[in-house]
Parts: sequence; structure tokens; C-alpha cells
Amino acid sequence: MRSLSTSSADGVRHLILTVGDVPAALWTPQSASGARPLIVIGHGGGQHKTAPAVLHRARRFVADLGAAVVSIDAPGHGDRPVHAAFDAAATANQARIDAGEDPIALITAFQAMVAEQTVPEWRAVLDAVQTLDHVGAGPVGYWGMSLGCGLGVPFVAAEPRVRAAVLGLGSGLANAGDAARITVPVEFLVQWHDERVPREQSLALFDAFASPDKTLHANPGGHSDRLPEHELDSAVRFFARHL
Amino acid sequence: MRSLSTSSADGVRHLILTVGDVPAALWTPQSASGARPLIVIGHGGGQHKTAPAVLHRARRFVADLGAAVVSIDAPGHGDRPVHAAFDAAATANQARIDAGEDPIALITAFQAMVAEQTVPEWRAVLDAVQTLDHVGAGPVGYWGMSLGCGLGVPFVAAEPRVRAAVLGLGSGLANAGDAARITVPVEFLVQWHDERVPREQSLALFDAFASPDKTLHANPGGHSDRLPEHELDSAVRFFARHL
Repeated sequence: MRSLSTSSADGVRHLILTVGDVPAALWTPQSASGARPLIVIGHGGGQHKTAPAVLHRARRFVADLGAAVVSIDAPGHGDRPVHAAFDAAATANQARIDAGEDPIALITAFQAMVAEQTVPEWRAVLDAVQTLDHVGAGPVGYWGMSLGCGLGVPFVAAEPRVRAAVLGLGSGLANAGDAARITVPVEFLVQWHDERVPREQSLALFDAFASPDKTLHANPGGHSDRLPEHELDSAVRFFARHL
Repeated sequence: MRSLSTSSADGVRHLILTVGDVPAALWTPQSASGARPLIVIGHGGGQHKTAPAVLHRARRFVADLGAAVVSIDAPGHGDRPVHAAFDAAATANQARIDAGEDPIALITAFQAMVAEQTVPEWRAVLDAVQTLDHVGAGPVGYWGMSLGCGLGVPFVAAEPRVRAAVLGLGSGLANAGDAARITVPVEFLVQWHDERVPREQSLALFDAFASPDKTLHANPGGHSDRLPEHELDSAVRFFARHL
């Protein structure tokens, strides 16, 4: 792990780091020492590890839970170079979608391919940041919507340190198989008028989680509309209950 | 309005009263004075105004929100006499259900008939308790599941004093018409394995609310299973935001 820069604002310490060639951002309480819960935030498609939506949630989790928060650039996103194979696959997919093919199946296959890389990357980042004295080996939570759900479900299924997950805007077609291996508490968000994930696919993914403690929250709005702020309040309380 | 009895426990004052021949229970903070939010709790089928599930929620709303809470015996429930017409209709319905008819349409028609009586009764109880110095003309909320939703939706649609409602375990077939007249914030609960309200009917009722601010919470479990305690926490915060 290599530290690239540190800064502080409003009681939150912000570290930019790399683990191997994977760039990540870590937020912790200003004067933290000792082990604490660690929440991984998975950013959305086309976003990056310090996008405003990530930063907004990271600050809340640090301030309200005293947690550490880490966010990782997905391949081809943020400070990472263009990923030739993924880029070629995405371009080919777009051509097939333009020619009338069902985008869901193509996006599903694409996310599965990316997850084969991100699951071990994210686990390596967890290993690295948990060696820090002010992060430590506390319980881990996961928060991710859309791409952050598509990559998050395989991660949560694979990683036993994760004790609770807020997921959403994902589809059963993409993730039902991995979801069936998840037994930790899940809070699952649906945008009721999602134009990219058909409603029945959202509900199918919620159905697929094996977690006995799971709850679905649906709100009006499209795929990219801002989530209601009360859902962030709810996520804070969800992690407070389970981490 | 006639007071029948008062008692106190754990900082909550409990008044049993009648408005005309309608029995109701009112809970307020022990030493309350002045206007405050008033939350109407509609009990479930076969229950009554002081059933344990009602009492549990009433105490939380009083303690956490400083609210007044009122609960009203539905016709034929609690301290009310058997209602001959409703009783005959219910008996006839049961015979038709036993003979293989779809229960949803029958229950829907039955609840619509009962609501014609309960909407004016509940409005009269609101009028009466809001004359009390320690209740006053504050904002009104509504909480009701199952029968409390079936009767609650027409009440919330009719009563402009209601500013926010937690509803659930109800069906679009029963209540979509009235729901389309509701524009106040709604938190809507679904039991994901409800054996009495088909899932698509639950979702249809959520769809039907005209409220721009509405949120659906679904949790595993059947129609009569206990709601997760975090949903009561959520209801407290929902009313805190909107009342």
C-alpha cells in the first residue's frame, strides 16, 4: 500500500492511496485510533472513488458512525487507465444494443467479467487498509448502487468480513446467483421508475438474497435520479444496527 | 366526548373515552399542555383500540415524538356491540369464500361498506380530542396496516388534517381509487410473503398513491407476522420529518 496524499476537513481525514496499481480513497475520523467498522462504497458506472455522491455518503458514515470508509476506482474509471479488453467489450455491447439486442443480458455478462477482476482487487484493498492502526480489523459493511451493486453482490458473496450490505438499482438477471450466497443483513433500494432495470428484475434480485434479515426500500424516480436523503439516514442506522 | 377512565404509566397518560357511541383510547405525554401532533392508529381486523400492537406503537409515538395518539374501535370490534349488518355480510362472505369465490373482491366490498361508517366516526373523534387543551389543533398523522389500511386509505383521502401516513398490508383492488386522492407523504409497508394480499396488489396500491413523496418498505414474512422493530423506528422518524 502506498499513500499518495492526505488532507483533512470538518473532522474527516482523507487519504488517497494505491494497493498495487489500484487507486483508492480512505476517510477516517480526524483523530481516530484503534479498530472501527469499515464501510466499502462502490461507485456507480462512469463515476469514480471520490465522486460527489461517494464523498457525501463517506462523510456521513465517518461522522455518524465513527467508521472508516474506503472507495475504489473500478477498472477504466477515475485514476485508472482505459482497460482495453473492457473497453472493447463495452463498445461491442453498445453496437449490439444499438442494433436492437436486449441490453440487460449484455450488461450482465459485462459486469460478471469485470467482477472477476474487482472482487480480488477489493479484497486486497481491505487487507491493506485494515493493517492501518486507525482502521484495524473491525466489521465491514458495503454500500453500492447500480454498477456498485453489480460488482458489490459478487464481492459481498465472496468476502466473509462483510457483515451487512446496502445494495440497489441492480437486477436479478445479473446477480441472483451470487445473491443466493449472501446471508448477511441486506437493505435493498429500488427506484420505482427505473428505466434501465425493469421493476420485476429489481424485485427478483431482492427475492434472491438468502438473508433472513433483508428489507426493500422503493422510492419514486428514475435510475439516475438522486436518492432521497432519508435513505442515507436509513443506511446510517442500518450499519449502526449491524456493524 | 365523555371520559370513561384515566390512568398513567411510564410517563404516558391513557384516557378511555367515547364520542357519541364510539369508544376510543387517547395517549398523551404525562404532563403535556398545548397543541402537539396527533397520530391516529387504526387497529387490524379482529383487534381493538388497546391491542398490544397498538399500545406498543402508541407508547413509542408519545415517548419519542411528544405526540398524542388516538385509537378507535372499528364497528363490531373491541367495546362495540356486534354490528348486525356487517356481521351478516361477513358471514355471507365467508360462505362464498368457502364455496370458492375470490376473497379479495368480497373483502374489498366489505371494507368499502365499513369505511362509509368509519370515516365520519374517525373525523368526529379527531374533532373531539383536538378540543382538549393538551392535544390541540396540531398536524395529524395516520398509522394503519391491513384493516387499518383498508379503512385508513379512505380516511386519509377524506381528511385534510392528515399530513402524513404509514400504511401497509393493503391492496390496490381495495383502495386504489381513494389512494389516487392522497398527496401527503406515505410510507407503505409490504410483507413480502403475504398470503392474503397478493404481492402485485400491494405494489399496485403503492403505485396508486398520488403522493410525490412516497416510499415502500418490504420485509420477509406473512400477513400476520410481527413487523420488524426497525419499521417502528422508521415510522417514528417519518412522522418526525412530516408532522
